[in-house]
Amino acid sequence: MIFTSGARVYYEDTDAAGVVYYANYLKYLERCRSDLLRAAGWDVKRIQDELSVVFAVRSVNVQYLLPARLNDELVISVELTRLGRASMDVHQEIHRSDDRICIADIKLAVLDRQSFSPTAVPDEISTEIQKWKQA
Amino acid sequence: MIFTSGARVYYEDTDAAGVVYYANYLKYLERCRSDLLRAAGWDVKRIQDELSVVFAVRSVNVQYLLPARLNDELVISVELTRLGRASMDVHQEIHRSDDRICIADIKLAVLDRQSFSPTAVPDEISTEIQKWKQA
Amino acid sequence: MIFTSGARVYYEDTDAAGVVYYANYLKYLERCRSDLLRAAGWDVKRIQDELSVVFAVRSVNVQYLLPARLNDELVISVELTRLGRASMDVHQEIHRSDDRICIADIKLAVLDRQSFSPTAVPDEISTEIQKWKQA
Amino acid sequence: MIFTSGARVYYEDTDAAGVVYYANYLKYLERCRSDLLRAAGWDVKRIQDELSVVFAVRSVNVQYLLPARLNDELVISVELTRLGRASMDVHQEIHRSDDRICIADIKLAVLDRQSFSPTAVPDEISTEIQKWKQA
Repeated sequence: MIFTSGARVYYEDTDAAGVVYYANYLKYLERCRSDLLRAAGWDVKRIQDELSVVFAVRSVNVQYLLPARLNDELVISVELTRLGRASMDVHQEIHRSDDRICIADIKLAVLDRQSFSPTAVPDEISTEIQKWKQA
Repeated sequence: MIFTSGARVYYEDTDAAGVVYYANYLKYLERCRSDLLRAAGWDVKRIQDELSVVFAVRSVNVQYLLPARLNDELVISVELTRLGRASMDVHQEIHRSDDRICIADIKLAVLDRQSFSPTAVPDEISTEIQKWKQA
Repeated sequence: MIFTSGARVYYEDTDAAGVVYYANYLKYLERCRSDLLRAAGWDVKRIQDELSVVFAVRSVNVQYLLPARLNDELVISVELTRLGRASMDVHQEIHRSDDRICIADIKLAVLDRQSFSPTAVPDEISTEIQKWKQA
Repeated sequence: MIFTSGARVYYEDTDAAGVVYYANYLKYLERCRSDLLRAAGWDVKRIQDELSVVFAVRSVNVQYLLPARLNDELVISVELTRLGRASMDVHQEIHRSDDRICIADIKLAVLDRQSFSPTAVPDEISTEIQKWKQA
C-alpha cells in the first residue's frame, strides 16, 4: 500500500532559476510522511508530546528527474520499505500528472525527544504503519 | 466576500522555540493570495507568463496575536480593501478554530515582469477580483 | 549607536520572480538581531537555555523599497527605539551599498520559555543592549 | 584543495525538535558551492546572466551524523570529485569544531538557462574550478 498526499508549488518554493529550489522538495517529502502518521492516528505533535520521541532523518538519497515549477500540483507518495526496532526506511516519489519529478530513499531513526538517543519505535506507531509496508 | 484557504503546520514551519517562525506566517498569507487568484481563473504562473506582470509586496503590517504550533490546522483569509490602478491593498487573517493567530494589512503593486516598473492591474484580473472587495 | 551585520543573497532566498521572496527579508532582520545579542554576550541559545526566556515578535511593519537580487551583499542594521519592562521596539534597515532595500519597525516581547507568558527583560540583557538605544 | 566557508545557525534554520531542520543543511551546502564559484571569479548571478547557464542538482546523497543546534558555528567544505563535459560531482561536509555534522555527495548538471537542456561547462568556469579537484 502506498500513501499519497498533495502539494501545490507557491512562490516560497521556487528560486531565481524559475524552478523549485532543490532543498524544498525535502519539505514536500516530510509533509507526506507527517500526513501518513496523522492518517495513522499519530500526528507528529502527539508523537513528540505523548510518546516523547521524534523521527530523525539518518540519510536521504534523492534523484531529481524533472524540475517542478510555480503553481504545479504535485502528488507525493511514501511507502515503508523496512521497519526495524528503532528505525525505518521509506521510499518516496513526487509526481506531476504523469511526470515523475523526483524519487527518494530515506532512512529514519526514532530518538528519545530529550536525550536524542535511539529508542524503539513505539508499538502504537509500528502497529499502525505496518500496513504501509511494501509487499 | 472573504476568500479563505487552509494550511497545516509542519516541522518546516516551526523553530527551536517550538512555535511557527515569524517569517513563515507570511508564506501562509501569500499562499492564500495565490489561491484566490487561482480561484479567480488566474494563477500566478499564468499571470507571470501570459500577462507579463508580477505582484510585488510594498508593505506588510502584521500583528502576531497567538503562536501557531506543530500540526495546527490554520484557516487563512483575504479580502480586498482597496483596488487602485496599479496597486491594491488586502486585509488578511490567520485563525485556528476560534483563535485568531495573526492579522495583516498588505499593500501590493503590479509590476511589469521584466522591467519591474509599475503597471496597471490587467483588466482580466481586476474584473475577477472585484468581488472579493470589502463592502 | 547602530548595530550592523552582513548577509549574502543565495538561491534559497530568491523566488521565481527573480528577486528575494518577501518573507525572507524577515530572516535577514532576525539574523541581525541575533548577532547583536551575541555581540552583547548573550546569544539566543544561552538566552533560551540559561535565562529561560525567548523573544517573541509582537508586530512587524515592513516597507519594501527596492528588491534585492541573487548574489547581492546586504548590510542589515538594528537600533533599539524603546526598552520596556517586558518588551522592546527596534528599527531595522537593509541596505545594498547606497540603496535602501527595506525598513522595518518591530515590537518584541520577552516570554517565559515554557509558559510563553510575558516576563521581565532579564537584567543581564537589558544592561548590555542599552547602548544600542537610539539617542 | 578543499574550499570552505562558514555559516551560523539561526532560528530560521531550526525546527520544533530543537535542531536544524533536515532540508536546511542543503541550504548550507549550496551557499558553500556558491561561495566557491564567487571566489573563483564567477558568482551565480554572473553565471546565470553572462554565461546563460545554471547548475542543476541531479542527485544528493546526505548522511546526517550529528544534529546542529541554534547558534552553532558551522564550517562547510566542498571539493570537486569529478569534472565532466556537462556535469560535475562534489563531496561536501559540514563540521562544528571537531564534530562532523553531515557528509554529502552531490551530482550537478550544467543547463542552458532558458531551455534547461544540458550544455557544456563553460571554459571560463572549468578552468577556474579545476584547482578544487580532489587529487
